[in-house]
Amino acid sequence: MSKLLGDQVSDQIIKLIIDNDCKPGDKIPNEYELAEKLNVSRSTVREAIKALVSRNILEIRRGSGTFICENCGISEDPLGLIFIKDKLKLAKDLLEIRFMIEPKIASLAATNATEEDIQKLEELCDKVDELILKGEPHMDVDIEYHKEIAKCSKNIVTAQLIPIINKSISLCIDMTNRKLLKETIETHRDILKCIKNRDVNGAYDAMYLHLVYNRKHIDSIVENDEI
Amino acid sequence: MSKLLGDQVSDQIIKLIIDNDCKPGDKIPNEYELAEKLNVSRSTVREAIKALVSRNILEIRRGSGTFICENCGISEDPLGLIFIKDKLKLAKDLLEIRFMIEPKIASLAATNATEEDIQKLEELCDKVDELILKGEPHMDVDIEYHKEIAKCSKNIVTAQLIPIINKSISLCIDMTNRKLLKETIETHRDILKCIKNRDVNGAYDAMYLHLVYNRKHIDSIVENDEI
Repeated sequence: MSKLLGDQVSDQIIKLIIDNDCKPGDKIPNEYELAEKLNVSRSTVREAIKALVSRNILEIRRGSGTFICENCGISEDPLGLIFIKDKLKLAKDLLEIRFMIEPKIASLAATNATEEDIQKLEELCDKVDELILKGEPHMDVDIEYHKEIAKCSKNIVTAQLIPIINKSISLCIDMTNRKLLKETIETHRDILKCIKNRDVNGAYDAMYLHLVYNRKHIDSIVENDEI
Repeated sequence: MSKLLGDQVSDQIIKLIIDNDCKPGDKIPNEYELAEKLNVSRSTVREAIKALVSRNILEIRRGSGTFICENCGISEDPLGLIFIKDKLKLAKDLLEIRFMIEPKIASLAATNATEEDIQKLEELCDKVDELILKGEPHMDVDIEYHKEIAKCSKNIVTAQLIPIINKSISLCIDMTNRKLLKETIETHRDILKCIKNRDVNGAYDAMYLHLVYNRKHIDSIVENDEI
């Protein structure tokens, strides 16, 4: 099979997904149906599906079929950060980008969030608090909370971008330091309160303060050479 | 071959690349050598390499071997934006992120660029001007110019992130409008001048103005319903 044909079929499958308004978690037609529909061999379809699995667009669940990935099309390491050796410098640079994006995003969220958005945000905020107070791992829900703020902003790119950056930071260094937990709860609550109150500047400042605590934490790791 | 084994071997090949400080464009050991080194079958190595090719980490050049991709590990569509249907809204949201990141990055570049960096930046600025004046496509070099500013900032993440965002915009809409060309040349020159003069605020403002022209251009497309 020429590489070109495989790529073409991958592109055709992506087009099918878009045209049919498929959502993450949806099942796509099986190998036989796709081969017929696209007028290519089953082995070509299989090859194209494999490539889309590698690109995190599709996932094969043995025995039940081929599905669209939850994080459709976003690879585990979309920015190719795995090849950067200095993980502490990387964490600081990632945080610097959070400083550039997230306060502004919190402002936009205070303007654009619907009542339904805010309810979801409140639930996630409660969930993070609960996990922290129980002493259980809260990082995934924490990232989910920041992603939800990005969704509230209605900037469709940041909802993809912010989880990538925040997850990358948590892969570089341990952000779940005990000292930071009280500040995390408080600043998360503040951000929520300001978004609820449509307080554009307040949301900006609350997010900024949240990031300041994070930076202090990273700096303390540097000072104590803990990495 | 179990999926798990393939993934493990992919991870081992990535580790080899990192440990050996390999750079984009470097050739990696062939299938036989890798199979021996990692103590797995050649078909397993082949499968792992295929997965890394799909992830844009490796590329196979027929007849000469397997090489590390130039944009090592960054997929064509790392943010999974292909699935967003409203391309004009997407372009506006991407530009909104540029507003959040790039003026600050230009400031950092004015502080952190080395003399060598500035020379490279100047060459790219000349090259964009030249292409524009000749009426040739300048978008790739334009993106390269903005990537170089990000490199000057010494924030290692933005050099990966900014080309992704800027390239995504150029895929959504045609940014090479004739009206914008004069402003592109002038504002690019201003940004360069401020970085050279270590003018932190000037670099911020020049980049901001550059983005304002871009936003005006997108808005005019909306008004004229040109998309």
